[in-house]
Amino acid sequence: MLREKLMAMIDERKDEMIAIRRHLHAHPELSFHEEETANYIVKFYEGKNVTLERNVGNGYGIIVTISGAKPGKTLALRADFDALPITEETGLPFTSENTGVMHACGHDAHTAYLLILADCLIQLQEELAGTIKIVHQHAEETPPGGAKGMVESGRLDDVDAIYGIHVFPFFDAGHIAYRSGFSMAGRTYFKLGIQGTGGHGSSPHMANDAIVAGAYFVNAIQTIVSRRLNPFDTGVVTIGSFDGKGSFNVIKDYVELEGDVRYMTKETQALIDTELHRIVAGLEVMFGIKATFTYTADYPPLYNDLQATENAVHYLQKGIGDYLQSVTEADMLSGSEDFAYYLEKIPGAFLYVGARPKGVENAYFNHHPKFDIDEDALPVAAKAVADIVLGFYDLE
Amino acid sequence: MLREKLMAMIDERKDEMIAIRRHLHAHPELSFHEEETANYIVKFYEGKNVTLERNVGNGYGIIVTISGAKPGKTLALRADFDALPITEETGLPFTSENTGVMHACGHDAHTAYLLILADCLIQLQEELAGTIKIVHQHAEETPPGGAKGMVESGRLDDVDAIYGIHVFPFFDAGHIAYRSGFSMAGRTYFKLGIQGTGGHGSSPHMANDAIVAGAYFVNAIQTIVSRRLNPFDTGVVTIGSFDGKGSFNVIKDYVELEGDVRYMTKETQALIDTELHRIVAGLEVMFGIKATFTYTADYPPLYNDLQATENAVHYLQKGIGDYLQSVTEADMLSGSEDFAYYLEKIPGAFLYVGARPKGVENAYFNHHPKFDIDEDALPVAAKAVADIVLGFYDLE
Amino acid sequence: MLREKLMAMIDERKDEMIAIRRHLHAHPELSFHEEETANYIVKFYEGKNVTLERNVGNGYGIIVTISGAKPGKTLALRADFDALPITEETGLPFTSENTGVMHACGHDAHTAYLLILADCLIQLQEELAGTIKIVHQHAEETPPGGAKGMVESGRLDDVDAIYGIHVFPFFDAGHIAYRSGFSMAGRTYFKLGIQGTGGHGSSPHMANDAIVAGAYFVNAIQTIVSRRLNPFDTGVVTIGSFDGKGSFNVIKDYVELEGDVRYMTKETQALIDTELHRIVAGLEVMFGIKATFTYTADYPPLYNDLQATENAVHYLQKGIGDYLQSVTEADMLSGSEDFAYYLEKIPGAFLYVGARPKGVENAYFNHHPKFDIDEDALPVAAKAVADIVLGFYDLE
Amino acid sequence: MLREKLMAMIDERKDEMIAIRRHLHAHPELSFHEEETANYIVKFYEGKNVTLERNVGNGYGIIVTISGAKPGKTLALRADFDALPITEETGLPFTSENTGVMHACGHDAHTAYLLILADCLIQLQEELAGTIKIVHQHAEETPPGGAKGMVESGRLDDVDAIYGIHVFPFFDAGHIAYRSGFSMAGRTYFKLGIQGTGGHGSSPHMANDAIVAGAYFVNAIQTIVSRRLNPFDTGVVTIGSFDGKGSFNVIKDYVELEGDVRYMTKETQALIDTELHRIVAGLEVMFGIKATFTYTADYPPLYNDLQATENAVHYLQKGIGDYLQSVTEADMLSGSEDFAYYLEKIPGAFLYVGARPKGVENAYFNHHPKFDIDEDALPVAAKAVADIVLGFYDLE
Repeated sequence: MLREKLMAMIDERKDEMIAIRRHLHAHPELSFHEEETANYIVKFYEGKNVTLERNVGNGYGIIVTISGAKPGKTLALRADFDALPITEETGLPFTSENTGVMHACGHDAHTAYLLILADCLIQLQEELAGTIKIVHQHAEETPPGGAKGMVESGRLDDVDAIYGIHVFPFFDAGHIAYRSGFSMAGRTYFKLGIQGTGGHGSSPHMANDAIVAGAYFVNAIQTIVSRRLNPFDTGVVTIGSFDGKGSFNVIKDYVELEGDVRYMTKETQALIDTELHRIVAGLEVMFGIKATFTYTADYPPLYNDLQATENAVHYLQKGIGDYLQSVTEADMLSGSEDFAYYLEKIPGAFLYVGARPKGVENAYFNHHPKFDIDEDALPVAAKAVADIVLGFYDLE
Repeated sequence: MLREKLMAMIDERKDEMIAIRRHLHAHPELSFHEEETANYIVKFYEGKNVTLERNVGNGYGIIVTISGAKPGKTLALRADFDALPITEETGLPFTSENTGVMHACGHDAHTAYLLILADCLIQLQEELAGTIKIVHQHAEETPPGGAKGMVESGRLDDVDAIYGIHVFPFFDAGHIAYRSGFSMAGRTYFKLGIQGTGGHGSSPHMANDAIVAGAYFVNAIQTIVSRRLNPFDTGVVTIGSFDGKGSFNVIKDYVELEGDVRYMTKETQALIDTELHRIVAGLEVMFGIKATFTYTADYPPLYNDLQATENAVHYLQKGIGDYLQSVTEADMLSGSEDFAYYLEKIPGAFLYVGARPKGVENAYFNHHPKFDIDEDALPVAAKAVADIVLGFYDLE
Repeated sequence: MLREKLMAMIDERKDEMIAIRRHLHAHPELSFHEEETANYIVKFYEGKNVTLERNVGNGYGIIVTISGAKPGKTLALRADFDALPITEETGLPFTSENTGVMHACGHDAHTAYLLILADCLIQLQEELAGTIKIVHQHAEETPPGGAKGMVESGRLDDVDAIYGIHVFPFFDAGHIAYRSGFSMAGRTYFKLGIQGTGGHGSSPHMANDAIVAGAYFVNAIQTIVSRRLNPFDTGVVTIGSFDGKGSFNVIKDYVELEGDVRYMTKETQALIDTELHRIVAGLEVMFGIKATFTYTADYPPLYNDLQATENAVHYLQKGIGDYLQSVTEADMLSGSEDFAYYLEKIPGAFLYVGARPKGVENAYFNHHPKFDIDEDALPVAAKAVADIVLGFYDLE
Repeated sequence: MLREKLMAMIDERKDEMIAIRRHLHAHPELSFHEEETANYIVKFYEGKNVTLERNVGNGYGIIVTISGAKPGKTLALRADFDALPITEETGLPFTSENTGVMHACGHDAHTAYLLILADCLIQLQEELAGTIKIVHQHAEETPPGGAKGMVESGRLDDVDAIYGIHVFPFFDAGHIAYRSGFSMAGRTYFKLGIQGTGGHGSSPHMANDAIVAGAYFVNAIQTIVSRRLNPFDTGVVTIGSFDGKGSFNVIKDYVELEGDVRYMTKETQALIDTELHRIVAGLEVMFGIKATFTYTADYPPLYNDLQATENAVHYLQKGIGDYLQSVTEADMLSGSEDFAYYLEKIPGAFLYVGARPKGVENAYFNHHPKFDIDEDALPVAAKAVADIVLGFYDLE
C-alpha cells in the first residue's frame, strides 16, 4: 500500500526531477563554492515539515531531517551537489551557463532525484517510522571532500545506516550494480621536490643532478607495487608529473614530481605510505639531494558493509520486473569517492545506477566535457532508494 | 727593427683599441644578426690597402686580405664579433644599449685588438711577406656557428696556418696560456621525445607511461660514460631538461628530454653517438614507446696542432719580460669553440689571454651578466699575435 | 541407506587407510620415477571388478574404471602419488626409507584415502549408476606434470566432472575449504642468459658488462607488474637466481638469470609473456648483448568451475555436524597445481582438506622436511568425496 | 771509463742473467710464500761485500746495501720476485715445476737482471759513491703488497731516490717507455653483502628480495663515474661478481657483489670511496636491506716524480744508438703496481722495458698462461738501470 503510493508519487514527479536536474546542470558551482546551489536546495524545503541545518561541516552542506510518525532507527540518504572545472561541450539546451564549470559527474542528477524522493517521503511522514536524514553534500570532487566535514560535524553520529548512489553511463537505465566490501579505491596525492645543485652541463662533478636523482626515484618506486604489495591486493603508484624542464646544457638543480597512489584497503595504504617514505629517505642518502615530500591521503578506500549491501540487494528485488531489469555485482573500481568517509563510521552501501544515454554504445565517461546521462535514470534512482528506505524500515 | 716598430705602434693605439671595444660593447648584436657590427668593421677598413670580402659564409663574416710586399705563406688571424642574449648587469658606463643583448664573452675585445693590429700590419705592408687574412667572424655563440660557414666558403683554402685567441678572466693580463692537441670539448645537442599513451593514474595497464620510460632512459645512459667510454678519455652526457610536467593523477603520454654531450676527440663523439642511438632504439623496444630523437653535433673538439702550438709558444718567448709575464700550459676545457672548425682544416692554435679585472680575485666567468675584463689585455693580445705573425714569417 | 552404508564402510577401514599412507610414506618415489608406487596401486586392484589401465599419459599414470549397475554420467576422482627430492626430518616411525626423497606434500594421504574409497565403491557397484574413473596420477610435482599427459591421453575425454583434493596443514581435520573460479596460480619458468664480452675490470670500454645488463633487466621487469598489469589482477615476476659469480676485477662476460612468473588468468599469463619478451628484445638492443631466453609455461591457473564448485559445497552440507565442522571459502593461493590441466577440459573442482597435526599451532608447510599431517583427515577426505559422488549421481 | 767497464760486464754476464731467470721461472712461488726464492737470492750474495737484511717488512723481503767508496746520496733499485696462481701453458723447456704457479708477470726477469747488475756494482764498489740499496721485494701481486711492508719497515727512510722497471711484451726489446706524474692506477677492492629476506617466489611481499636491491645498487653506482667524477679525471667502478645463484622460484635472501675501483689520483680515490659508501647507506634505507660493506684500498695510484722521471729520461739518452733504440712517453695504464708505495715516500720513477718475444705481433699479455718475454730485454734492463745509477751519481 505505502510502497504503491510512494512509487506512484515518484512517477508523477518525473518531469519535476528532470527540470531540477536541468536547472542545476545549467548553474554548476565548483566544490566548496556551491552557494547558489545550497540556496536552491534550502528554498526547496521551505515550508516543509522538516528540520534543516545548513553550512554543516566544512562547506555548504545541508542536512534535512524527516521524522516519521512512529519511533524507529535513523537512516541517512546522501546526494552530492558540486560540479567540476570543465568546459562543457555537450551542446545541450540546458548547457552550463557558468563557463568553465560543468556538472560532468552527474551530481545534478543525484540532487534532483533525492529532492523529489525526500519530498515524497515528507508527504508520507505519517506513515513512516524512525528518522530519515537527507544529506545534501557539498564538495565531493575536491579533497579533503565535503563528506569528511559532514562526518566530523557529529550530525550523523546517530545514524544507523547510510546509502548513496552514483549514476554511471557504462550501462543502461533500469540496471543497478553493487559490490560488497572494498569497492572503490582510496587515493593519496604526493609531491616530491628534489633539490640538487645546478651547474654547467659539461661539469657534472661540480653539480648534483636533480634529474638523475628523480629518474632513480621513478625506477625505485616501481618495486613498491611489484615487490612489496601482496600480489592479491591492489595498489597503484603513478608519477603523473615530472617537472624538470630546463636548458639542455645546464644541470638541473631542482625537479618536482607529483604522484597518485591508489589502494583498496587501509593496510595497502599504510604499506605504500611506509615504502614511499622509505624510498624518499634512501634517495636523500644515496644521491645526496634534499627531498621535500608532501604526502596527503585523500579519500579512503570505499568499503560497503556486507550486511547493508546484502540488505539493499534484497530490498531491490521488489523492483525487478517493475522499474528494474537487473541488480548485479560490479567489479572493483579504481576511482575514489568521499562517500567512503561515511562508510568508515556508519554501515551502509554505495550503489551504481545505470544512466547510459539511449542509443549510445560507448558513452562519454564521467568527467568528460561531453558527459551526459539518460534522464530515465532519475525515477529509477528514486524508486530504488525508496525501496531501500521501505525495506530498511520493514514497511510495505 | 720591424718588431720594435710594430710594438710601438700598438702601444700608441691602446686608447683607440679600448674605444673600439667600448663602442662594440655598447652596441652588441646577437649571432647571425650582427649587421651594424659588420658595417662598423667594414667602415674601419675603408680606404685602406686591403681586399675586403663581406657576407662570407653563412652570415656577416668578413675576410680582409693584407698582401705583403714579398711573396710568402698565408696566415689567418681570427676574431669573432657576435654577442649573447644576456641582460647586462655590469653597470659600466659603456653598458649595452641593446637591452637583453650583451658582449658577455669578450668578443668585443677580440675584434678591437685585431682591428688595430690589422691596421698596424697594413701600414707595415711594405715590410711584410706573404698574405695575412684577417678573419672577422660572426656567430660564434650559436650553432652551427659562423666558423663552419667561413671554412665552407672556401675563402680560407689557401691558408697555411691560423691563430685565434680568447680573453679569459681566470688569470691576469700579461699572461697567456696554451695547450697542444685536444684542448676544448666538442659538443652535441640532442632532444628525445618519448611518445607513450596517456591514461588515468589509477589504470596504468590502459596507458603506457612516458615518464617511466624517460626515467629508465636517464638511468641507462649513465652507462655510456661509466662503461662504454675509455676511462682515460673524456665524455659527458647530461640531460639538462626532463619536460614531463602534468597532472598528478593522469599518466603522462609524452615527455621531452634535452641533453648535452661533450667529448675531447672525434672517436669519443662517435662512440657516444652510437651508444645513444642504441639506447634510444632499445628503449622503443623495451617500453613500447615511440621515440623521436634529434641529435645535432655542434662544434667539434678543438685540436691545436702540435707544431703550430709549439711554434706559437716559441714566438711568444720574445714577449716574456716585456709585455708578457708567462706563457703556460692550460688544462683541457670542457667549453666549446667554433674555432675548432678552422683547426679541422688548417694547422693552427687557439690561445687564452688573461684578462682578469684588476683587484678582483674571483672574477665573473664568461657568459655572466657581470662579466668584465681588464682592458690592459687588449695590447697584450695585439702584441702576442704580432709576435706570432713575425715569428711565422721569420721577421724580426 | 546407500550413504549410511558407504560412510560406515569408510569408518571401518580407517586403519587400513592409515597403513597404506604410512607404507607409501616410507617408500616415496620422485616424479616420473614412481614405478614401485604404481605397482603397489595396481596390486591393490588385482582381482577387483574394474578395468585398470596403467602407464597412461607421460608416465606411470593409472586409470581405474568402476562401472555402476545403472547407466549414468561419468565422474573422475583424482589422487596424485609422486614425492619430492627432500630429505625427511620428521623422525616419524614410518619415515622415508628412500633417503633424499619424501612425501612432503601429502600425496601419500591422497592415494591412501582414494584407494579405500574406490574399494568401497567397487563393493557397492550394484547400487551405483554411471561410471567412476579413479585417476591415480604420477608426477604432479614436476613440470610438465602428469596431469597434462593424462588429459592428452584422451582417456578422460568422456568424463562429465572431475574432483580432487589436497591436504593442507593450515587448518584442522574436519574442515574443508573451496574457492570458485580462479583459485590457484599458473606458473611459468624462464631463464635468461646474457652474453656480453669479458675483460679486465679496469677497461670497461674493451668489454661489455653482462652484470650491468642483467641489473637493468631486473629493474626493467619491475614495470611489468607495476605498470602493465591491471591493478585488480594478480601477477608476480620473481628473479630467483642471478648467477653472476666471478672475479672482482674481471668484467663478467655471461650471467644467467632464472625467474618465476605467477598469474591467476590466461590473460595475465599472455600479458607477462609478451612484456618479458619485449624487455628481453629491448635489452639486446640497448646493451648490445646477446640474450638467450627460455620461457616455459608450467601449470595453468587453476579454475574451479562455478557450478561444479557450488554443487560440491552443496553436497558437503550433509557432512556438517557429522564428519565435518565447516566448509568455507578460501582465499586465492599463489601455489600451482597440475590439476589445473583437467579443469581446462572438464568441469570440476579442487578442494582443500584440513590436516593440521593435533596440538600444533604453526604446522610445517607442504614441502618442508618436517611436514606432517593429522591422519584423521584421511576418513574425512574419503567421506567428503563419497558425499560428492553420491550427490553427483543423486544417490542417497 | 766506468760506464764502459760496467756495460761490458753486463754484456759478459748475459747468459748468467738468462740462466737465473730460467731457474726462477721453473721454481715460482706465490706472494708471501717465496721462501725458496728468497733463499736463492740470499745465497747469491753470500760472500759478497754487502750488508744483507732478510725478512724485511711483511714477508720475505730482502735489502742488500752496497756502499760506495766515496760518500754520497742513497739510491734504491727494486725488483719484485713473487709469482702468480696461474697454470703455465707456454711449453717452455724451463716451464714451471710448481704446477698452478707461474712467473706470468716477468718478476723472474726483474730479479735476474738486478742480481747481475748488483753484482757488477759490488765489483765496482771502489769506484762508486754513496749507497745503493738493492730491494728484492716479495709479494707484489697480492694486496696489501710487499712494498707496503718494505716502506713501513723504515729501512728505506734514508733513500734519496728509487727506480724500478717492469718488462712488458707490448713492445720490442731495445725500447723503454716512461711517464711523468700519475701513470698507473690505484685500486680498491670492495665486497657488498646484501641481506634481505628469503621467501617463496610467489609471495614477494613476505620477503625482501636481495637480487632486486643488488640490481638497483649496480645501476646507482654507474652515476659515480658518469656524474660525480670530473670528466677530465679517470675512474672505474666495476662489479666483477654478482653472486646471486639460487632457485628460480625462491626469493633470494642474500647476494654478494664484489667490485674493483680504479683511479689515477688520491682525490679520485677519496671521491669514489665517499660515493660508494653513500650509495650503500642509501641502499639500506631505500630497500630495507642490511648491507655488509668491505672496502679495502689496495695499491695507490703510481706517481712518478717529475724530476726523477726527467732525470732518468736524460740519463738514458746515453744508451740511444747503443743498447737502446728509443725512450718514449707512455700512456697512462689502468693496471696497478705496489711500487706506488715507494713513490709515496721517495722521489723516483717506474719504467717500462720492452720485452716482446721476437717475431710475435700480438704477444700474450702479463698474467696470461702463455705469457713470455724476449730475454734480450734482460741486458737492456740492466744497462738502462746502470745508466740511471751512473747518471744519478754523476759518474761516467
